Amino acid sequence: MNLRLKSAYSQLKERGLDGLLLSLPANISYLTESLSRDSYLLISEKGNIYFTDSRYTEEARSFLKDNARLKECNGPVFKCIARAALELGLSSVGFEERHLPFAEFSRIKEYAKEGFALVPTNGIIEDRRQVKDKQEIARIRKATRITALSLQHIRKFLKPGIKEVEVVAELERFIRYQGARASAFDIIVASGHNSSQPHHLSGARRLKDNEPVLIDLGVDFQGYKSDLTRVFFLGKINVLVRKVYDIVLAAQDLAIKRIRPGAEMAEIDRVAREYIRSKGYAGYFTHNLGHGFGLEVHEEPRIRGKEAAALKPGMTFTVEPGIYLPGKFGIRIEDMVLVTSKRCEVLSGSINK
Amino acid sequence: MNLRLKSAYSQLKERGLDGLLLSLPANISYLTESLSRDSYLLISEKGNIYFTDSRYTEEARSFLKDNARLKECNGPVFKCIARAALELGLSSVGFEERHLPFAEFSRIKEYAKEGFALVPTNGIIEDRRQVKDKQEIARIRKATRITALSLQHIRKFLKPGIKEVEVVAELERFIRYQGARASAFDIIVASGHNSSQPHHLSGARRLKDNEPVLIDLGVDFQGYKSDLTRVFFLGKINVLVRKVYDIVLAAQDLAIKRIRPGAEMAEIDRVAREYIRSKGYAGYFTHNLGHGFGLEVHEEPRIRGKEAAALKPGMTFTVEPGIYLPGKFGIRIEDMVLVTSKRCEVLSGSINK
Repeated sequence: MNLRLKSAYSQLKERGLDGLLLSLPANISYLTESLSRDSYLLISEKGNIYFTDSRYTEEARSFLKDNARLKECNGPVFKCIARAALELGLSSVGFEERHLPFAEFSRIKEYAKEGFALVPTNGIIEDRRQVKDKQEIARIRKATRITALSLQHIRKFLKPGIKEVEVVAELERFIRYQGARASAFDIIVASGHNSSQPHHLSGARRLKDNEPVLIDLGVDFQGYKSDLTRVFFLGKINVLVRKVYDIVLAAQDLAIKRIRPGAEMAEIDRVAREYIRSKGYAGYFTHNLGHGFGLEVHEEPRIRGKEAAALKPGMTFTVEPGIYLPGKFGIRIEDMVLVTSKRCEVLSGSINK
Repeated sequence: MNLRLKSAYSQLKERGLDGLLLSLPANISYLTESLSRDSYLLISEKGNIYFTDSRYTEEARSFLKDNARLKECNGPVFKCIARAALELGLSSVGFEERHLPFAEFSRIKEYAKEGFALVPTNGIIEDRRQVKDKQEIARIRKATRITALSLQHIRKFLKPGIKEVEVVAELERFIRYQGARASAFDIIVASGHNSSQPHHLSGARRLKDNEPVLIDLGVDFQGYKSDLTRVFFLGKINVLVRKVYDIVLAAQDLAIKRIRPGAEMAEIDRVAREYIRSKGYAGYFTHNLGHGFGLEVHEEPRIRGKEAAALKPGMTFTVEPGIYLPGKFGIRIEDMVLVTSKRCEVLSGSINK
């Protein structure tokens, strides 16, 4: 049994639970140290049970080892889960209230009758995942390296006349030759005025001379994600675009310099946001400054205005201020940082901005 | 306001509801005729409200037209939703119990207090989506055409020595040059013994002479998905592989011939399953015969042993029997059919098997 599971047991005890049902794939992957999909995991000191269907049993057998017993479940999963909890004799089973649909909650409850209590929980495993261990950091470094190589490659590929989606195509091809399993999310290639939409759907628009091309790219390396944004320019850079770019870059730089163990997350967001406000773009930085990444591309911690929690060594998150001028253009610069014992390391620091 | 929304209103009336909260992205896309993401939709004859955050508002404004009012919601979404339902004066609001996390259900309920009832519903919109209209079928045909061209292309690309993930890379590139927005799911390339895992994660294994390569590919064209599997052979085909291939192909053929409006779904599954059983492979066809596809790659109807419902013209689903011999190899042949007024059209019929 691995250390992550053991640590989870002590979390359960603190909450007066004798079992926890996991439904968030990233949490299950974390606890089983695998690339789990389409599964549920029930953990308890009395035994861990992994539920999946026949499409995945051969794969699951190979990665579960002694971490959990495999239960193939081709009928309604709620029955399998409830029965397993009853058989283990559990009395108080937590579930992930943000990641269990209402229907499954109520079916399990109905089936369990008075056999055990189902207790909503929140973030037990996500909290643990915020601080990365050595193996996780090594994978994140590799994902970042692949991202750096891909951006270096795509710089030469960008030309007026090619479609946004063709840039995506080339990136989707290239990353897999560098060892990525897949992209971490729908790669964003937003040219010209499309860049004013922070999550633009890349499409048939053709790149043109003298406009920005925003690329937001992430890859998956052995389950760990990267997430990085750069803006490229074809031809000449318009004066306003240059000005906005410099403001975003300076805001990011101020935020990164403020990162250290113990610093309040809200403070990191604030320093970037206030700088952008001071330059007259208060209403145009419309999202949080950053987010954790790891097994998920968006995970805890959230670097935003209301987050009073303190940074800890081993946390990995993005720093990505942006200014979006609707119908005109948008600039976002996104880097990935690792909080160290004194300050932070910009994992993506080698990638030109 | 579009016809899909109007038809949804009458479904609500039949159930005694005056509102419905949608959280399944495909249902929201269907009702707003868009590529909606990260959103919620509250519909009611008193008004439709679309909730999203600042990353998507510019995009949403352009596709919502008069179908729904846009509500930008950067705080907790449950508050926005509950407040909107209260403001509309709704008394009984359905929600999608399979697609709303327990936490959101309970927060909305708590916030709404006695203002309105929250009623679990199931499949209201999914049922409507089972039968495709002309525009949907046109998009599915286009997605199928792209898939056909991609398989034709990849046939020449397959060579001993290249990695599974490199085949995925080439497909991910090629489909986008043919007009696909993205792949519909993680493309499966499973070579040799890996093919015995129905949902193998494509990896670093290199293709070898004299073994099968299973490719399961789907693309997204304007939101509509395709899903198709072929097995290719490098070099000579082993006698057992050939035998199993022929059994799967014959089982599929029998099932397809049985498809007609009014036929029971279970019957289509049964005819393939019984043929495979008669050939001695009863325990090795471990999943359902097929599934609907459209805005989702897996949707209603499910073509499986317990489904008593009848086929209707306009339904689109896969027919994909398989035989998996753990540790050895697997064969799956998957085609896409459209139920017509008399029988069915195999949409992917032009693709060699």
